[in-house]
Amino acid sequence: MNHDYKNIKVIGFDADDTLWVNETFFREGEHRFAELMAPYETENKVLQELLRVELDNLPIYGYGIKGFVLSMMECALELSNKQIGLDTIDDILQIGKTMLHKPVELLDGVEEVLSILEPKYRVLLLTKGDLLDQERKLEKSGLSKYIHHVEVLSEKKEKNYQDLLDNLEIKNEEFLMVGNSLKSDVLPIINIGSKSIHIPFHTTWIYEEIEIDDKTSYQSLSDIKQILKLLD
Amino acid sequence: MNHDYKNIKVIGFDADDTLWVNETFFREGEHRFAELMAPYETENKVLQELLRVELDNLPIYGYGIKGFVLSMMECALELSNKQIGLDTIDDILQIGKTMLHKPVELLDGVEEVLSILEPKYRVLLLTKGDLLDQERKLEKSGLSKYIHHVEVLSEKKEKNYQDLLDNLEIKNEEFLMVGNSLKSDVLPIINIGSKSIHIPFHTTWIYEEIEIDDKTSYQSLSDIKQILKLLD
Repeated sequence: MNHDYKNIKVIGFDADDTLWVNETFFREGEHRFAELMAPYETENKVLQELLRVELDNLPIYGYGIKGFVLSMMECALELSNKQIGLDTIDDILQIGKTMLHKPVELLDGVEEVLSILEPKYRVLLLTKGDLLDQERKLEKSGLSKYIHHVEVLSEKKEKNYQDLLDNLEIKNEEFLMVGNSLKSDVLPIINIGSKSIHIPFHTTWIYEEIEIDDKTSYQSLSDIKQILKLLD
Repeated sequence: MNHDYKNIKVIGFDADDTLWVNETFFREGEHRFAELMAPYETENKVLQELLRVELDNLPIYGYGIKGFVLSMMECALELSNKQIGLDTIDDILQIGKTMLHKPVELLDGVEEVLSILEPKYRVLLLTKGDLLDQERKLEKSGLSKYIHHVEVLSEKKEKNYQDLLDNLEIKNEEFLMVGNSLKSDVLPIINIGSKSIHIPFHTTWIYEEIEIDDKTSYQSLSDIKQILKLLD
């Protein structure tokens, strides 16, 4: 085993875009919304305005599909100056329902990795988004049997992680977090003295993108199966 | 101390309508929605249809204000046969935002009871609804200092409670749940062999109302402060 990971007893996995496809469905939803708004604005402008509305609403709506739909609704009223048809309002509701019914597409190697780690570690699923929707995806994923505990967090900042570790009586040096977001899964974890492994996904929500200074070092893997070698 | 409660080490409190006012705001939201729909249907019919849409959507939207707003939107399209104005769509979005910004109104005696129980028991807040909205209310309530751990559940059925107790390593016979809903806070708790105290609120969402058979016995209090006597 790599010396760095010898103390690890608990592994937290991010879910969306770490275990299964998610951001791709938001990209599809945004693209469909831009099509609906095409009579009023270019796709570029629509996506820019939608992001602005989403970020404005983040403090009250939080992450997840329901807040995304409510923000599209608000953005549609604004961009069209309340000229859109009610069929479009209906279409926006359907974008959300379609997303909430998507099948779960596991990423390569995920099941193998979890099945090997589960007997040796306490495995947690730590995610943002709508609680019910995340539970739905976990159930559909067939991964429940490898997960000891699921926690949906309203944010993934230092304090949220520290509170969680305290509640579950986990020591910081025994905790490893694995995820695709530098902002949510890597930096806060480094800052509380736990270990982190970054596994990038091909698309990231702009809001999750961050600049990393040259001095911050973290482990990044292109394939989740490489975790097994690191921990072996 | 009442003999029944001598083993209790952990007390779970429901939040909405047990610690603070909530259902009243949903009633206000529904009433405002019925006003908006008045050109199309009677208030009675509007509320009946809204409930139907909400229950249809419960498996995908879950509990909470965001799902409530999305269901009002869908109901408005249906009841008006897509004839409502876009101002009304905007008004419905505002019903939700108003609810999400409501100040928190603590119920009588709540702070006194929590402040007395907190040093002697592990106090949990166990609630349904939107995660972020529940965290907002807890923060605004000023009650955080009395709560050791908060858990937002997608449902409050036997399995949800049992999973929670297992995760937090709490024995069933050491757990007492306090809440206003017979369906969510009392019956499932009795069924897993834990203790429960019912404190009714003056209004209950129809979906939470249940018939209780004569043989089920449970402790019901009209005033949360009576808990102190029971546990003393």
